[in-house]
Amino acid sequence: MGEPAGIGLEITLKAWHHFATSYTPGSHHFFLVDDPVRVAKALRQLGSPIRISTIGDPAEADDAFRKTLPVLPLDMEPLPADTATVFGKPDTSTAQAVITSIRQAVELALEGKVAGLVTNPIQKKTLIDSGFSFPGHTEYLGELTKDVALPGQGLVRGPVMLLAGDTLRVAPITVHTPLAKVPEELTTQRIADVAIVVAQSLVRDFGVSKPRLAVSGLNPHAGEGGALGLEDDHVIAPAIAWLRQHGVDAFGPLPADTMFHEEARAQYHAAITMYHDQGLIPVKTIAFHSASNITLGLPIIRTSPDHGTGLDIAGRNIARPDSLIASIRMANLMAARRQAYDAALTSRPDGGGTS
Amino acid sequence: MGEPAGIGLEITLKAWHHFATSYTPGSHHFFLVDDPVRVAKALRQLGSPIRISTIGDPAEADDAFRKTLPVLPLDMEPLPADTATVFGKPDTSTAQAVITSIRQAVELALEGKVAGLVTNPIQKKTLIDSGFSFPGHTEYLGELTKDVALPGQGLVRGPVMLLAGDTLRVAPITVHTPLAKVPEELTTQRIADVAIVVAQSLVRDFGVSKPRLAVSGLNPHAGEGGALGLEDDHVIAPAIAWLRQHGVDAFGPLPADTMFHEEARAQYHAAITMYHDQGLIPVKTIAFHSASNITLGLPIIRTSPDHGTGLDIAGRNIARPDSLIASIRMANLMAARRQAYDAALTSRPDGGGTS
Repeated sequence: MGEPAGIGLEITLKAWHHFATSYTPGSHHFFLVDDPVRVAKALRQLGSPIRISTIGDPAEADDAFRKTLPVLPLDMEPLPADTATVFGKPDTSTAQAVITSIRQAVELALEGKVAGLVTNPIQKKTLIDSGFSFPGHTEYLGELTKDVALPGQGLVRGPVMLLAGDTLRVAPITVHTPLAKVPEELTTQRIADVAIVVAQSLVRDFGVSKPRLAVSGLNPHAGEGGALGLEDDHVIAPAIAWLRQHGVDAFGPLPADTMFHEEARAQYHAAITMYHDQGLIPVKTIAFHSASNITLGLPIIRTSPDHGTGLDIAGRNIARPDSLIASIRMANLMAARRQAYDAALTSRPDGGGTS
Repeated sequence: MGEPAGIGLEITLKAWHHFATSYTPGSHHFFLVDDPVRVAKALRQLGSPIRISTIGDPAEADDAFRKTLPVLPLDMEPLPADTATVFGKPDTSTAQAVITSIRQAVELALEGKVAGLVTNPIQKKTLIDSGFSFPGHTEYLGELTKDVALPGQGLVRGPVMLLAGDTLRVAPITVHTPLAKVPEELTTQRIADVAIVVAQSLVRDFGVSKPRLAVSGLNPHAGEGGALGLEDDHVIAPAIAWLRQHGVDAFGPLPADTMFHEEARAQYHAAITMYHDQGLIPVKTIAFHSASNITLGLPIIRTSPDHGTGLDIAGRNIARPDSLIASIRMANLMAARRQAYDAALTSRPDGGGTS
């Protein structure tokens, strides 16, 4: 669902059109978890000719998808149907619906009724003002799934954020941390933990048999031997050494400015960066419209567009659906690969990793 | 000259070939400030068929350039001719020659005998081990030129580093600062000073009549209203307000991750970023081979390739000259624009800005 005052519904309709016009059964079909009455009203506001169908169960979505956008009603009372959506003006009265949509979709994913969860952008401040106590989707998903075991032996739990464009995947160690606090939050353990989750996901979800990870330094020129900072040698290098001892092909710490150009990117499957902008700048510079935000290390698959709620342009039907389309495609592909990988493990004589 | 054990001579030869084969008198000709005997020896080591000519004065370079690489001898005794160059192995015995080359070229530029100075990469550690007390070229150039007035009224002094690719120019406020010290080094005054120098250079050297500057935030999402850090609102925003009050069209602070993609870049002429990697990552990601490092706010024009000495590949003649070629082209273009701009000012009835 995402923030109803934002561009979520617009890009969902465009993504539906994209996939429905090239529809083959079972491929990239999805449904919206929302209030059908609210959606119908918003469709009229947007002047959209697209029709919706209310479904009672995820299994009905495939049939419905070809001609309509399927909507599974929110599991809450009362439904927010009577709240008029004012595009660009988030209202705390819809916060509970937004949160319910996430929780309900997570439950469906945990029950195996959907292959994965794609989340439209939320307006964090509106949710937090309504009592939501998580900094964002990622942390809430971690909480909702924390009691469910990961299905494979030795899989390390996240949540870990991976931002993936066509030619670059990046996982930042710290995410929404003020820059001044980044150095103190960086620990060898945390770097190693994130890298392990990324390496495991590359194998299981991305079909990379021997993942190779590039690890950035923290300081200019990766510290230049200590002259420009010590964390590169004292905190990051030990994490890389530990990873290599444990069979993860990681290298670095690399000067961050020269590790993202085309030839450099060809040397690795994912980059581990120390903070938000260090990793998100290169991905969004080269793949602004098409990158997808993926949460790794959960018992479910979850992807999301790499942009916000677009309050400044919401309601005008000009938002680009590229990143949502990439996120739906990515969730579908990851689910197919993960299913095949886990099935192959289970069928091995040694019993594989399914717990 | 740059570091003799590095790729400097190789890329200089390739740049000479590039410009000499498309030679028209006065365009992009250059000469090397080095020891001709040392250069001749190194040419034999590289197996290069290119010939050099020793010139006694910069004025001879244009004639010589068409068929030979002109070399102006270093103004020092003894010359380093007898020091064997071992590619990949810098030696402190050549440090004085490297420093002399820079000093001599700066003097020629200050005397107006050359249009600008292009510096090959130096090995900082080798120079510093030999008693050189500057962190790099930029600071040394600031020192060598500090007593020479800038030629225009109201011009603000640097040095300020600008990294310029074809579609993105970036000036970092802090450069070789460990990340943990970046927040304390950022001041409103420093941001405003750098931005002023960049804006003045865009007018005078880049032919931009109304420069528009995008200013990054420091923290993720530019602090998100204070939730992710305070510097964006307390330090950076006041600098932007000051700049606007003083006629500089600056905007921000912008979330750094979304300010460098193609559509975003079209909104400004240069980006002001808070630290090294924040600005250098996007430029080097999209223009790794062709970006040029420019020092603004000096009484002379100075450009440099955006890469290092390449010790790991030196002597094999595989180094790419693209960035040096771009730097020579940039120096030439800046000199032509600056000369025309200053001449137009001087010819104005109000006397213009020449001091």
